[in-house]
Amino acid sequence: MRTTIKDIATLTGFSVTTISLVLNGKGHKISAETKKRILDAAERMNYRPNQLAVSLVKKRSKSIGLIVPDIANVYFANMARAIDEACSESGWSVILCNTSDRHERDIEYINLLADKGADGIIFIMAKDNTREMARRALELLEELRVPYIVLDRIPSGCGCPGIGTDHEVGGYLATKYLIELGHRRIACVMGPPKTQMDSEARFRGYCRAMKEAGVAVDSSLVCTGEYTPRGGAAAVDQLISRDFTAIFACNDASAYGVCQRLKFYGKRVPDEVSVVGYDDVFYAQMLEVPLTTVRQQVYEMGMESVRRLLRQVKSGERLLEPVIFEPELVVRDSTARRE
Amino acid sequence: MRTTIKDIATLTGFSVTTISLVLNGKGHKISAETKKRILDAAERMNYRPNQLAVSLVKKRSKSIGLIVPDIANVYFANMARAIDEACSESGWSVILCNTSDRHERDIEYINLLADKGADGIIFIMAKDNTREMARRALELLEELRVPYIVLDRIPSGCGCPGIGTDHEVGGYLATKYLIELGHRRIACVMGPPKTQMDSEARFRGYCRAMKEAGVAVDSSLVCTGEYTPRGGAAAVDQLISRDFTAIFACNDASAYGVCQRLKFYGKRVPDEVSVVGYDDVFYAQMLEVPLTTVRQQVYEMGMESVRRLLRQVKSGERLLEPVIFEPELVVRDSTARRE
Repeated sequence: MRTTIKDIATLTGFSVTTISLVLNGKGHKISAETKKRILDAAERMNYRPNQLAVSLVKKRSKSIGLIVPDIANVYFANMARAIDEACSESGWSVILCNTSDRHERDIEYINLLADKGADGIIFIMAKDNTREMARRALELLEELRVPYIVLDRIPSGCGCPGIGTDHEVGGYLATKYLIELGHRRIACVMGPPKTQMDSEARFRGYCRAMKEAGVAVDSSLVCTGEYTPRGGAAAVDQLISRDFTAIFACNDASAYGVCQRLKFYGKRVPDEVSVVGYDDVFYAQMLEVPLTTVRQQVYEMGMESVRRLLRQVKSGERLLEPVIFEPELVVRDSTARRE
Repeated sequence: MRTTIKDIATLTGFSVTTISLVLNGKGHKISAETKKRILDAAERMNYRPNQLAVSLVKKRSKSIGLIVPDIANVYFANMARAIDEACSESGWSVILCNTSDRHERDIEYINLLADKGADGIIFIMAKDNTREMARRALELLEELRVPYIVLDRIPSGCGCPGIGTDHEVGGYLATKYLIELGHRRIACVMGPPKTQMDSEARFRGYCRAMKEAGVAVDSSLVCTGEYTPRGGAAAVDQLISRDFTAIFACNDASAYGVCQRLKFYGKRVPDEVSVVGYDDVFYAQMLEVPLTTVRQQVYEMGMESVRRLLRQVKSGERLLEPVIFEPELVVRDSTARRE
């Protein structure tokens, strides 16, 4: 038989009201000690809320929330569209919230969505989240008892339901390809500092490929970019006096800036410098020199996150291990064999 | 003194409850005749809900809804970002809803947003809205008594609070510029059929410029595009056997398709064919031949719609006339004087 709140009351000696408050994440005035005892008992007894009762009380609205860092970034815009399509097919609505990549707005919107009765949340973290901030955001989600999936930027070792890309593999594929083309002096234009969840992983992949090929990483060829065309251009300004024949830029926007700036200096792509980007956003193939890049499975990740979240909302089945997608290399015209 | 619901009750003889239901858009079971008498009386007596009372009851959440046709379209994504920024500056949140350009989802999301207690709605209509459908959507907004602004696609003569662009001026500027460069055989690649709110207006501007210059419009040079690269390419397939020296494409995505396809046929832009786009999306200047295009004031329109909506939410001051922004021509490299 199913465990009820009454069973937990009998076991712990607390009132049904107190237990209900705690289990619904509303026990703000209840002591931590009491909370812990109730939650432990609920877990031990394998308590699962009666979904029908919950939806009657909470008036489930068949809507989920989607928190994105920057909706004007085509990478996230495409992900948002995939999520929207998947939801729409299942008769669900999406409430989209843009955080401008700011942690404080992550928190604001998690609260707002819970408040508005979203049945679940797909959460793409702001890039300024430190490990500590990320932990706090996840704790809030747990406290509010809203089913959620962390998408795209998964803090390492968070143990949360997550769906992402193996960016180390991405960085590795890009660099390995350049090495196969005969390049050795390969620069790396990273993302903004502190983006440990993605840019640093791509850099690790770059280092791994270099090491495998027996090429030392020259730190003067590693620049911090900003994931923007401007950042890519600034990196080239820094690199131009150095000796290099290829550049791996950690996203397509900065790769575009790299190509523009190389042109400004009269360096031809790919004849003099090979360039690889990352993301395969739609305009990668629209550029003057169509870009070789690492494709993330944006669409598939969006779809999968909806499938997993709805499963969790409907049956309480929680994703225990992150689902990690593998990126792939897309070869176009911005790379060439080193003569 | 302010008119209260009691005053309306005294005048009409209906109960306070009935009147309250009707005024709050919840009088589904109340006869049309009764509704009409109550709404007429409310209007005659200049009834305005007590905003403080309303926000206490409705728990105003300082959040507005934004309904967009396609979030993966950079034009709308940039508008969404501007709206988000403007709201954030004023301490408001934005709930974004993507309709995939489908009228039925316009209606779905208007209901959802009202349900979730959004304090106001910025509404960019799906492109498949017929005049009749558009009217129905606006009626629903009025019925639900949610303050709203119709942004970007304003049905002609709707008399609703709207903020948009004068697309006839846009089409006129593009075509006039091509005529000034000496072109006479100017093709026009329109948007999808039935987009009377924007593509047809651009076409009217094209016709006006042609007429002013004494050039007859050749209907074999007017194609229906789809606002997509593929649509632009298909239009060139249709045009290629005709005699033309310039193409005005009604948005940048189709202009990109036009340029690609001209290249495929070995026609050089701008030496053999001049091309003008529309929108000035961010990638217009990233293309192999940076695109001459018509810039809409996307950012300013987004900002203004927030200012106007918040004013309406806070003080009930309703925008009576649409605010219309003028587009401007941005000259880049895809246009040249006809030799």
